[in-house]
Amino acid sequence: MTTFTEKLRQSWRTQNSLLCVGLDPDLQKLPAKLRKQPDALFQFNREIIDATASWTCAYKPQIAYYSAISAENQLERTIEYIQVNYPHLPVILDAKRGDIGPTAQMYAREAFVRYRADAVTVNPYMGGDTLAPFLQYTDKGVIVLCRTSNPGSGEFQELRADHCPIAHHVAERAATKWNVHNNIGLVVGATYPDEIRLIRKIVGDMPLLIPGIGTQGGDLPTVLENGLTKAKTGLLINLSRSVIYASSGSDFAESAAREAKNINLQINQYR
Amino acid sequence: MTTFTEKLRQSWRTQNSLLCVGLDPDLQKLPAKLRKQPDALFQFNREIIDATASWTCAYKPQIAYYSAISAENQLERTIEYIQVNYPHLPVILDAKRGDIGPTAQMYAREAFVRYRADAVTVNPYMGGDTLAPFLQYTDKGVIVLCRTSNPGSGEFQELRADHCPIAHHVAERAATKWNVHNNIGLVVGATYPDEIRLIRKIVGDMPLLIPGIGTQGGDLPTVLENGLTKAKTGLLINLSRSVIYASSGSDFAESAAREAKNINLQINQYR
Repeated sequence: MTTFTEKLRQSWRTQNSLLCVGLDPDLQKLPAKLRKQPDALFQFNREIIDATASWTCAYKPQIAYYSAISAENQLERTIEYIQVNYPHLPVILDAKRGDIGPTAQMYAREAFVRYRADAVTVNPYMGGDTLAPFLQYTDKGVIVLCRTSNPGSGEFQELRADHCPIAHHVAERAATKWNVHNNIGLVVGATYPDEIRLIRKIVGDMPLLIPGIGTQGGDLPTVLENGLTKAKTGLLINLSRSVIYASSGSDFAESAAREAKNINLQINQYR
Repeated sequence: MTTFTEKLRQSWRTQNSLLCVGLDPDLQKLPAKLRKQPDALFQFNREIIDATASWTCAYKPQIAYYSAISAENQLERTIEYIQVNYPHLPVILDAKRGDIGPTAQMYAREAFVRYRADAVTVNPYMGGDTLAPFLQYTDKGVIVLCRTSNPGSGEFQELRADHCPIAHHVAERAATKWNVHNNIGLVVGATYPDEIRLIRKIVGDMPLLIPGIGTQGGDLPTVLENGLTKAKTGLLINLSRSVIYASSGSDFAESAAREAKNINLQINQYR
């Protein structure tokens, strides 16, 4: 069985891409012709996926955009669509789950059994024992929040304990304690490029999922300079809104393709 | 409009109870006669609710038990059942959500618009700006993880920054920065009773949701001594498995009632 980590490394190589596209379809922002359809989110995603699949290494649907409007079924169909048509592209379910053991088992089942995602994002605040039920799925990826991209992320993540910010404590444990099955990644925001450099030093070749390029304003060249591994990979550069809403007209899919191709080119120029 | 905080205070008084019952129905643990029904979780919950409603101040369904098996509809029906039949009892959706602004808005919509919960649990790791979209629902409650009940909760929550554990930084911000609309509560595990005492000092009369009595082994008298406010309220003592699985036979509802009544009596003896 191919593990998430192997699938991701293969995808980086064969796709020649570090670009991850976030599938966060907000009904209010969809093109008018789609908005009225009962499965508008899925139809939108399908067109976005078909248009961008040549330029991406992975997709990352954010579950809240589906669960807020009782559209879990469209999330299931979206993931299935990728796995049937683009089986080489891993799907990361962005859910930022976390809870005590028995409940974490249920969340892991949600992500890996129900939705069949290749990886899921999780929140480390409750401690490593609450991540164990996810990590036991050794063929799946578990991507732990470390330093997030939002303006207030430093409020706790930057607090220093033993001369070291909390985010680095998370990175250090991810690298030395939790990664027994080599199935961990970390979320580090493009908006904190110095942190990408420091965290890369702590975690070696571990995959880093990098939100914050695009709408949030992170600087691509600095992110790559600070985050690439020696093999010039190691990063999932995520873009959501700036790709999927590149146009709000009927040309949304072509515009998303153009944007994805363009960003992938930019990324590869700086590699 | 009655806010969550007002509804909770009224419930504490009129129900003469600080007991919150967690509705975490695991299909594997349900009585055999229910297990085969297509809406087994809802049928189980309905019997548990009817049996325990006299002894509780609130209910707390944990969403993962529903989403893991595509049973969101049964969660909706459970919450609606409480709100129609026991409108004086607040419903806390235990979801431990958290994400950057636009996504947090979707999670808030999931909890408050889709499920119509009176309150939701959230994770503070990403910082106060990520809690704002929840807090803007000023009539709803936002219950922030502070010191959780699991054995490994200290891994980050106990790290000390500026001579003060991270959990206390969370409590301090909850009390002084985030509680503009008086709609915040905190999760503090019964398994760390000294922390309940210290956090109570930081947050004054703020409601504390206390998991960890029952199966997890927290000590009730110490929890009450350390956590009660001057008005002898302020606590939501949560029990899930030890009440809802008090019996695995066809007498599960009566057994749950007996257990809830008994625990409520114990709680009130120590108040």
